[in-house]
Amino acid sequence: MENSLGKLFTITSFGESHGRCVGVIIDGCPAGLAVDEEDIQRELDKRKPGIGVMTTKRAEEDKVEILSGIFNGATTGAPVCLLVWNRDIDSSEYEKTRFLPRPGHADYTAFMKYGGFNDFRGGGRFSGRITAPLVMAGALTKKLLNLAGIEVIAHTVAIDGIEARTRTFEEIREKVWGNPVRCADPDAADEMVRAIEKAKGEGDSLGGIIEGIALNVPVGLGEPVFDTLDGALAKALFAIPAVKGVEFGSGFSSAGKRGSENNDPFVIRNDKIVTKTNNAGGVLGSISNGMPIVVRIAIKPTSSIAKSQETVNMESMESASLITKGRHDACIVPRAVVVVEAMIAVTLCDLALRVGLIPRVMK
Amino acid sequence: MENSLGKLFTITSFGESHGRCVGVIIDGCPAGLAVDEEDIQRELDKRKPGIGVMTTKRAEEDKVEILSGIFNGATTGAPVCLLVWNRDIDSSEYEKTRFLPRPGHADYTAFMKYGGFNDFRGGGRFSGRITAPLVMAGALTKKLLNLAGIEVIAHTVAIDGIEARTRTFEEIREKVWGNPVRCADPDAADEMVRAIEKAKGEGDSLGGIIEGIALNVPVGLGEPVFDTLDGALAKALFAIPAVKGVEFGSGFSSAGKRGSENNDPFVIRNDKIVTKTNNAGGVLGSISNGMPIVVRIAIKPTSSIAKSQETVNMESMESASLITKGRHDACIVPRAVVVVEAMIAVTLCDLALRVGLIPRVMK
Amino acid sequence: MENSLGKLFTITSFGESHGRCVGVIIDGCPAGLAVDEEDIQRELDKRKPGIGVMTTKRAEEDKVEILSGIFNGATTGAPVCLLVWNRDIDSSEYEKTRFLPRPGHADYTAFMKYGGFNDFRGGGRFSGRITAPLVMAGALTKKLLNLAGIEVIAHTVAIDGIEARTRTFEEIREKVWGNPVRCADPDAADEMVRAIEKAKGEGDSLGGIIEGIALNVPVGLGEPVFDTLDGALAKALFAIPAVKGVEFGSGFSSAGKRGSENNDPFVIRNDKIVTKTNNAGGVLGSISNGMPIVVRIAIKPTSSIAKSQETVNMESMESASLITKGRHDACIVPRAVVVVEAMIAVTLCDLALRVGLIPRVMK
Amino acid sequence: MENSLGKLFTITSFGESHGRCVGVIIDGCPAGLAVDEEDIQRELDKRKPGIGVMTTKRAEEDKVEILSGIFNGATTGAPVCLLVWNRDIDSSEYEKTRFLPRPGHADYTAFMKYGGFNDFRGGGRFSGRITAPLVMAGALTKKLLNLAGIEVIAHTVAIDGIEARTRTFEEIREKVWGNPVRCADPDAADEMVRAIEKAKGEGDSLGGIIEGIALNVPVGLGEPVFDTLDGALAKALFAIPAVKGVEFGSGFSSAGKRGSENNDPFVIRNDKIVTKTNNAGGVLGSISNGMPIVVRIAIKPTSSIAKSQETVNMESMESASLITKGRHDACIVPRAVVVVEAMIAVTLCDLALRVGLIPRVMK
Repeated sequence: MENSLGKLFTITSFGESHGRCVGVIIDGCPAGLAVDEEDIQRELDKRKPGIGVMTTKRAEEDKVEILSGIFNGATTGAPVCLLVWNRDIDSSEYEKTRFLPRPGHADYTAFMKYGGFNDFRGGGRFSGRITAPLVMAGALTKKLLNLAGIEVIAHTVAIDGIEARTRTFEEIREKVWGNPVRCADPDAADEMVRAIEKAKGEGDSLGGIIEGIALNVPVGLGEPVFDTLDGALAKALFAIPAVKGVEFGSGFSSAGKRGSENNDPFVIRNDKIVTKTNNAGGVLGSISNGMPIVVRIAIKPTSSIAKSQETVNMESMESASLITKGRHDACIVPRAVVVVEAMIAVTLCDLALRVGLIPRVMK
Repeated sequence: MENSLGKLFTITSFGESHGRCVGVIIDGCPAGLAVDEEDIQRELDKRKPGIGVMTTKRAEEDKVEILSGIFNGATTGAPVCLLVWNRDIDSSEYEKTRFLPRPGHADYTAFMKYGGFNDFRGGGRFSGRITAPLVMAGALTKKLLNLAGIEVIAHTVAIDGIEARTRTFEEIREKVWGNPVRCADPDAADEMVRAIEKAKGEGDSLGGIIEGIALNVPVGLGEPVFDTLDGALAKALFAIPAVKGVEFGSGFSSAGKRGSENNDPFVIRNDKIVTKTNNAGGVLGSISNGMPIVVRIAIKPTSSIAKSQETVNMESMESASLITKGRHDACIVPRAVVVVEAMIAVTLCDLALRVGLIPRVMK
Repeated sequence: MENSLGKLFTITSFGESHGRCVGVIIDGCPAGLAVDEEDIQRELDKRKPGIGVMTTKRAEEDKVEILSGIFNGATTGAPVCLLVWNRDIDSSEYEKTRFLPRPGHADYTAFMKYGGFNDFRGGGRFSGRITAPLVMAGALTKKLLNLAGIEVIAHTVAIDGIEARTRTFEEIREKVWGNPVRCADPDAADEMVRAIEKAKGEGDSLGGIIEGIALNVPVGLGEPVFDTLDGALAKALFAIPAVKGVEFGSGFSSAGKRGSENNDPFVIRNDKIVTKTNNAGGVLGSISNGMPIVVRIAIKPTSSIAKSQETVNMESMESASLITKGRHDACIVPRAVVVVEAMIAVTLCDLALRVGLIPRVMK
Repeated sequence: MENSLGKLFTITSFGESHGRCVGVIIDGCPAGLAVDEEDIQRELDKRKPGIGVMTTKRAEEDKVEILSGIFNGATTGAPVCLLVWNRDIDSSEYEKTRFLPRPGHADYTAFMKYGGFNDFRGGGRFSGRITAPLVMAGALTKKLLNLAGIEVIAHTVAIDGIEARTRTFEEIREKVWGNPVRCADPDAADEMVRAIEKAKGEGDSLGGIIEGIALNVPVGLGEPVFDTLDGALAKALFAIPAVKGVEFGSGFSSAGKRGSENNDPFVIRNDKIVTKTNNAGGVLGSISNGMPIVVRIAIKPTSSIAKSQETVNMESMESASLITKGRHDACIVPRAVVVVEAMIAVTLCDLALRVGLIPRVMK
């Protein structure tokens, strides 16, 4: 079950970048959830390449196909199979460089692990393209969570060291889809766009940080000591290509703080126990504490760049140099925002089902 | 299976801080591994409270008991049950503050999640004490990994913002157990000790950063796209209380770098493909790439502090203040070092079994 | 993961009888297994309706489609997605009887469990049609097992109380596909054919018994005490619709025997320890003992019959009577033979991977 | 997780027949279930050797020890660890016959699978003794199920071919514990006792059939197509040593029936849909249909007998003969009755939690 995630609510990924399709099976979805192609297409479109020079030239139509599990406009309780066909495929470049692994990419490890049998075209399974099905699963899952009152949002908080100013949840919700970098701070967004254009022009790439937020998560999600809320989220988020770090609340900065500073005092607001601050990022003892769950994800710069890089020919075992042509995002952060939302949603849904927050049949 | 971790090699945690014992079951351990109580005790002792004011006054003897799975000095292939009895228990303080959750602690979320039925004494399941069994599992696992040539080490790299200078693996191996903070840089270690003493004196606490390293891991560990090497490690590490962030290689700093800077060029050394740098932290495409696996873990300051904190009485729903008496480490980072090693070892062992790197019967 | 089976080698079922397709994802398949559409089609054809009046009139083309995981004629190590499109669909009869559950069928339980949201057309998920993907998974799996020297065969041993004479493995292999009831005893086969024709003529249906055999399974498959060889096989076999009993070796008849009679004496043949008899059916202590694995599966008579039956209108909660029109096999035993082979193969493959009998990359 | 069973409600078995203890961890148990040692002891006592010559001479006290998960008389939501210490151990006989596998026993397969490292004393993990912890888990589980209105009972229906007359549920409940063979038909019970005494006198052993029943199970338990009700029960029941067959309702006899005979007509009784007959054994489409679940389990004659048997010396690879001395039940059927109840209860509990029939916190 290495390509499956979740215990009660499970997604199973299949397909390759340049194969026939990329898809996902969602198992354990409650019956009776109203969902149609448009619900899913809308989310999928958020993953589309943005404007200008910023992103890949590959222009898949990416039209969702529902293969199973939805009948008369609602889920049936059976596995939901969703896929997008691959149409705009040009594998020629990959054939040429088959034995020249891109530095920073899975070309090398996949070749070694699968004895050279892996579908290397377009990175095969190790392509940003496999996140399209995750987004489709996220679309369905967010609908489910919404019925339980839970909202998941994500936004770009840094690219190339340019940091967005802190925004309220309302501002994030409002602004994030208004610019191509999915950043809630329009000024920073402009700067980020320019930075990406510059890097692209130089044949280089950039990384960044995405913040994911889950609102209205009740107290009690997470099953310590191992099926923890933070651990499950981290596992799901590291499945997104290029993620190199995950932190909750004050995260790495908490390591330099004092307890008296980092602890969130409990107070009563509207007859409910809340915390004054949210350094915990909504997670106490690996269980949700009712505050917004806040997780930050570090995304490294895209490994495929147009600059010459030092590599090795895996067949001849000789030194080589490589300029990656293909069609690659100079910065995948903007397109990963909706993927982050999807992985958070899928994880919360599994944990919500475990505590009965979401019923097995929707009324 | 919420208290179990791993698929082929599984550890199951049980026991409470102030219950009869804390223990672990190791299932899927290959038969024929020579292991005795001393092997395990040696590791367990590394988790002991250190010197001086730095650490908890609770002085458990923590003598390992082997209850099953080891016969004639070797594992049998059956589940190995290891435990330590709890002896030095004083729960009086906890009874008094039962309804006053410590800010930053799981008191509140555990109370809510388990409807008040949780064993709150000493934090119950949400106590650093449950890491003792993890260390016992780690002891056995490290022996197994060693037979496959893999070594796992960890060390403190920061406490209270005091950062250790970069050290070689040899230096780390040599120095780390020579000071109470498990830091390979003796100068930084001295400073850290002073910082902890100061914080302790002020009734406060400190956090820090631990670096975990796995050496000689061959290419190919990790089962993308979901049972990933980085995701599995992260999930395991977030099960350690107080962990708030996990990053691999250049981690969060990669978010500010360019691809040309962050990509690790491939070169040939001794007829093997290696990378010149290790920004990837040994993980490419969520699979080990043969370089040292390097993971950094952010540990927040201990939540239990002797300063007055704002909280709420969960029974009367009134505001309250709390000074935590009990016996608590002002900084748990030093004691967590061996726990980090254990969680890395357990995770690698599961992944190593999946690719047949470790046989089911040791010869 | 309710629609997934297996731990290392996992199959995930999706699709509905009258939906767009029925399919399967095979995850954990070793890389480098040579397999093409014909390998799979050949097995799929064995599941086709047989001759004459015996079987359903639904005539699906059932042409396998490989959607992922196979590249350049070999598995890649990525999930293999196989499906057959549904083409010959007539759901009109099901719409009419939507609220009239067929006695003996899952119509009632599915309606209740999924709150009426289930795709009821053609039985939806509770149709013999979902065994087509299982057979496709079985085709691939049998190829894998063959490389490890293991052969899986099944044959009809009883229909309507007509019992086949005991045959050697060679005879079974040779004769089983030579008649429409997949019985290795031609005389019994003739009688069975006549019995099915008679029952069909009377608007009734018949059950029977299938024997599954796995040859050359080495000692050591099965992971007691819970992931047992017999338990895993039984779980897999009960997933075939209409199975009501599973027994190994002397099975239920062993309950009336004495130990001295039922125990299989150990002897040495060709320097190997074998048993003189095989009352154990190849399973000792839930582990394979090197002898042929022999399992018998009871299949009840098809529930959909053309005779009038007493039922209830689930909407109006009134008594009703029902004559099932549709297109149904009067006896599904013959078509289930290849499904039994598939489920045995899939189960053995998962257990074989766990002990390293099958490598992760085929050379 | 080979020694774990269940997904949400999980039991993990540990310990060996002649080791320090045999135990079980119950994970996923809802918090707030009132349970004390006596609740568990009462069930454990039902597994005790009966009277007279019928059963083993080993007289363990078998006093339950609660090691974790129960606090102030109720479950806490944390793993419950229960064990019984082994006290009355005589391993001398096993040392002598270490390399002489008992025909019909796991001695041979365990030796081969675990490379000779297995704890062979008393059969180690392959001993009836490991069912004691299962019974303890069953005790707790039956309490949980009772709160959901579900009752699980089992009784001996055949020994040595002597069949009990059909009894009502009331009669079974009343009579089953009144005789040493746990048979609800007193006349058959007398005969069975005599048969066991006779076989014992001859140094031989007997098998039998146990029927397990679950009453008041609502419609909807079971998660097709693979986590089925019947498949899950079968998997759990095959974990009981000596089980060779499992059938539901009319089971193997359904294979000889016609559909018109075997289908259970639906009718309305007290405004509920029920079936007139119960050939389905309460399972339709692998989902509970609201009728009593009825499962029959074939138990082979005890393999350890006092008659001389043909075997092989696994070390010298020479033919040998063996008379098993030790202390063995001539018929384990009576002692297995409560074990069957336990395995049914544990399985139902896991499935009940999945559909929310049992809450995560008991009020």
